[in-house]
Amino acid sequence: MDVGLFTANNIWMMIATALVFFMHTGFSFLEIGLTRSKNTINILFKNIFIITAGLLLYYAWGFNLMYPGFEEGSAGIFQFSMDSFGIAPPENGMTPEYADGGYTWWTDFLFQGMFAATAATIVSGAVAERVKIGAFMVFTVFYVGLVYPIVGAWKWGGGFLDAWGFYDFAGSTLVHSVGGWAALVAVALLGPRIGKFGDDGKSKAIPGHSIPMATAGVLILWLGWFGFNGGSVLSADPELTSLVLVTTSLAAAAGGMGAVLLNYILYKNLDLTMFLNGILGGLVGITAGADLMSPNEAIIIGFLAGLIIVLGVALVDKLKLDDPVGAVAVHLICGIWGTLAVGIFGSKAGGGQFMTQLYGVLIVGAFCIVCSLIILSALKAIMGIRVSKEEEVEGLDIHEHGMDAYPDFTND
Amino acid sequence: MDVGLFTANNIWMMIATALVFFMHTGFSFLEIGLTRSKNTINILFKNIFIITAGLLLYYAWGFNLMYPGFEEGSAGIFQFSMDSFGIAPPENGMTPEYADGGYTWWTDFLFQGMFAATAATIVSGAVAERVKIGAFMVFTVFYVGLVYPIVGAWKWGGGFLDAWGFYDFAGSTLVHSVGGWAALVAVALLGPRIGKFGDDGKSKAIPGHSIPMATAGVLILWLGWFGFNGGSVLSADPELTSLVLVTTSLAAAAGGMGAVLLNYILYKNLDLTMFLNGILGGLVGITAGADLMSPNEAIIIGFLAGLIIVLGVALVDKLKLDDPVGAVAVHLICGIWGTLAVGIFGSKAGGGQFMTQLYGVLIVGAFCIVCSLIILSALKAIMGIRVSKEEEVEGLDIHEHGMDAYPDFTND
Amino acid sequence: MDVGLFTANNIWMMIATALVFFMHTGFSFLEIGLTRSKNTINILFKNIFIITAGLLLYYAWGFNLMYPGFEEGSAGIFQFSMDSFGIAPPENGMTPEYADGGYTWWTDFLFQGMFAATAATIVSGAVAERVKIGAFMVFTVFYVGLVYPIVGAWKWGGGFLDAWGFYDFAGSTLVHSVGGWAALVAVALLGPRIGKFGDDGKSKAIPGHSIPMATAGVLILWLGWFGFNGGSVLSADPELTSLVLVTTSLAAAAGGMGAVLLNYILYKNLDLTMFLNGILGGLVGITAGADLMSPNEAIIIGFLAGLIIVLGVALVDKLKLDDPVGAVAVHLICGIWGTLAVGIFGSKAGGGQFMTQLYGVLIVGAFCIVCSLIILSALKAIMGIRVSKEEEVEGLDIHEHGMDAYPDFTND
Repeated sequence: MDVGLFTANNIWMMIATALVFFMHTGFSFLEIGLTRSKNTINILFKNIFIITAGLLLYYAWGFNLMYPGFEEGSAGIFQFSMDSFGIAPPENGMTPEYADGGYTWWTDFLFQGMFAATAATIVSGAVAERVKIGAFMVFTVFYVGLVYPIVGAWKWGGGFLDAWGFYDFAGSTLVHSVGGWAALVAVALLGPRIGKFGDDGKSKAIPGHSIPMATAGVLILWLGWFGFNGGSVLSADPELTSLVLVTTSLAAAAGGMGAVLLNYILYKNLDLTMFLNGILGGLVGITAGADLMSPNEAIIIGFLAGLIIVLGVALVDKLKLDDPVGAVAVHLICGIWGTLAVGIFGSKAGGGQFMTQLYGVLIVGAFCIVCSLIILSALKAIMGIRVSKEEEVEGLDIHEHGMDAYPDFTND
Repeated sequence: MDVGLFTANNIWMMIATALVFFMHTGFSFLEIGLTRSKNTINILFKNIFIITAGLLLYYAWGFNLMYPGFEEGSAGIFQFSMDSFGIAPPENGMTPEYADGGYTWWTDFLFQGMFAATAATIVSGAVAERVKIGAFMVFTVFYVGLVYPIVGAWKWGGGFLDAWGFYDFAGSTLVHSVGGWAALVAVALLGPRIGKFGDDGKSKAIPGHSIPMATAGVLILWLGWFGFNGGSVLSADPELTSLVLVTTSLAAAAGGMGAVLLNYILYKNLDLTMFLNGILGGLVGITAGADLMSPNEAIIIGFLAGLIIVLGVALVDKLKLDDPVGAVAVHLICGIWGTLAVGIFGSKAGGGQFMTQLYGVLIVGAFCIVCSLIILSALKAIMGIRVSKEEEVEGLDIHEHGMDAYPDFTND
Repeated sequence: MDVGLFTANNIWMMIATALVFFMHTGFSFLEIGLTRSKNTINILFKNIFIITAGLLLYYAWGFNLMYPGFEEGSAGIFQFSMDSFGIAPPENGMTPEYADGGYTWWTDFLFQGMFAATAATIVSGAVAERVKIGAFMVFTVFYVGLVYPIVGAWKWGGGFLDAWGFYDFAGSTLVHSVGGWAALVAVALLGPRIGKFGDDGKSKAIPGHSIPMATAGVLILWLGWFGFNGGSVLSADPELTSLVLVTTSLAAAAGGMGAVLLNYILYKNLDLTMFLNGILGGLVGITAGADLMSPNEAIIIGFLAGLIIVLGVALVDKLKLDDPVGAVAVHLICGIWGTLAVGIFGSKAGGGQFMTQLYGVLIVGAFCIVCSLIILSALKAIMGIRVSKEEEVEGLDIHEHGMDAYPDFTND
């Protein structure tokens, strides 16, 4: 094993880790930008909770739960009940032999830990402006601590989806749809925000309070995807990492273009938030097969994801679901699209692969829906999941946190 | 070829690519921060369009147009009319032999693609708050898709400027002045914003709506310049890349100091925006010779760029040109300064080099002025380039996009 | 020496440099977010001054002052009086032999230069909203240009603290406490802001004007700490760098959890700013021993730092000291805690090490207090260090800079 190469690989994985961590800043900006200023602190509190609690939970048992086979004799799902609370690096974990010279055991843990928190963050945006903070925190603990690593183990931990040949390079299904299914269940259980649907049943726009923050959020997320997809190569392999960055960026660009074009055709409006969600849709869409696609295929996948975003947002609205940031369209619908696209484009294209992808989507979907329903229904019964009408109208910041995000401006 | 070294080189170039991509966030923040809140969405829309359309155009033909000689038998400028729409990696493109072991073909494309979009972004700031969005989008397509790669081919593609010995390390001329000349032509054709020059002919300050965003923008741009200049080494050569980061950062610091000092002497005011533009001036100024200068020379070049900024902004004002973000002073004038400085300082200093640099500046300037005039005059005749008076007064956000960037604050 | 490995090491150090530079954006966001909008430009001006002046001063003599022994025959503290103004790279500075193959001389300078500016930035937050800008600028010159490198030389330059076995991996004492002691002295000399303590002597909250910016600031600082601690390994050693990132991130997460929990127990409030300061406390706390601790120890150190933050903020308040951003609790108290923790946890744990750590803390503290007192008292006598009552009430932005940070919102 070449020490220089091992060092280079490990550097790339650490940078990817840093970039995925930075995505939490992107998600925070996006979510607060697309919602009202009176709920800003609440959303930020949720995001900070997700990343801190997420890392600690992943350390406590999530990592061992998700990669049960990595260590000889590891107990996998039961690991957390054993005396080895916390991570216990394998004896050869720090050597260039670990993970075929890709990176150290520490890098492995931290990179995967940054991923883990993402799933709950996706939910955070969808339930914004009306969810009870305590209920959301408990939900996060279960979803990041159990549901995400269990699903992850099925594929990335070497489980049955992996054995079937299901392909999901960086998590269109394993990360984005896992978050997206919970978002869907949560918005259905929570109901729409007050004023979202008029007495006539028509959807009304509730404009976000800071479009610059939403825009910065998407640009930061795009940047973070350099690490999310680029790091999922699990080494610094020059050809593969750089191809992945190209397909990722082209899909993002094409997604934005697709969404803004279709939106203009349908509504005659140059809609910036649709442009932004189209970029995110393209990014989510390419994630399952970023290492398999040619640039032309990446552009097609991204562009179609952009079209899907416009239609998906309209569909969610039609179903009387209130998803303030478009998380269901972006992460769930484009996550499914990206996963299926692996069976349509690239070197794995073919009917057999398509069906495997479809089965994977359905199985993960069923599991996530059931888990979300159980967790959220239990929380609804025990402590309630929605704030009072008064609190929702006056804002969660004052009621749950006793603070105002912008006191110099809103108190005037 | 050493695989470890190739991998390391490629990592550095991918990071540089990510940092140059992040500059678009910096430009966005700077431009909206220095303009009024009523035009914020419009500016952000332009910036998102530039990066998405820019990447796709560069993929479609810009890259082949700019680097015609990279592939044996490549048709260069006519490449885009051939059946190989989109990029077609050379057979050895993914091997360590490509680009002397610097990086893969994919990395090459993406790094250069991120650069390409920068030129149009420079124009975006100058024409802010009054340009028609449709006209600007068409202009972007021509300028990023044709003008930038053609000029780039003259030097970086191995064309006649390169043969002459013209030196432009990372693009004081090829990127910043190319954008700056178009900015100059555009502000002249557009005319000043309503209220910029009083009936007495005196210039009036139109304060930007968010100085924190402008400041963050400049800090992000400085960070991005680590990749812009550091990546222009085209390998991770330890001595050269780290020297470039040192000269870049010292020039930025000296530029800020120069501008804030001269501004204080002239106007007795500790002007933050001048401080920020001085930093940018220093960065643009060092860009042409960041790899040739000693730290002392970098400080001198940067400091003088800072002085030039203060005088340049005053000059632009005196000429009754309205450039809301100071793009002409920063990118055009300091771009010229930096290019000429290569003939004054560093190992290439000398009369012969100076004249070569001057010829390069003039030829590029003439070409960019002519191209900009043709494109913008045609657009003016066909669809108009300036919004109506009513739209300008009420804001482009409501008229062109039907949205408000800060509805919770401005609607109160 | 392996060129591939040297290149990889140098890349990691350059990235760490970039990340530490980005921390200045984080500090800027945090400081303006936690203060009032009328003083925003003033704070940003100070931050931009610190990074630009800091780099130039460190170039002029700080680096040579801090690392006197690096070059054979270097005069150290008297270097700046010699004709070699500015840095003069050693003959073998650019070779793989420099710094045991870790990085080039240029990288060394720039990484350390980015660190240097941090100490003054810590003070900036504490004195916000009432310090005279001119006095602060002079203070910065002395503190970054002299005090910081002298203390640094005692340990990192191979001085007596190093000889004693004092351990401070990345600067809990050498950076954070050095800044924190000056912050303490400065807030004591300045006195509280008008309105901070009522006639009844009770402390009143003066809410910051943008909690989203404060939150983004902390997330960016956490990201920057990947470079601050990760780069302090001074090579890309895979095991050590990745361990450091794990301990750093776990301590940050645990710090946030500790602070938010204790705060909730004491005050029954889910306080976002305490969550954020807890994260920072955890980061400062792990900094002295990030390379020595196991993940479990990092979590304990971080969690205790979080508790310390809540108690520290209350203590500062009780002492009638007005520290708008909590800099004393975060950087001074947690800096001391982190330094002492090296004698309690990790492979160096033991009474002897604990006493060495304690002596180091006390000696550095005494020196910094004396220096700060001398500099600030002299400035108070000569030019005054606090703005007039009128200026403080109306805001420093208008009085010192003639500008408004948010004219579209605050002028309405």
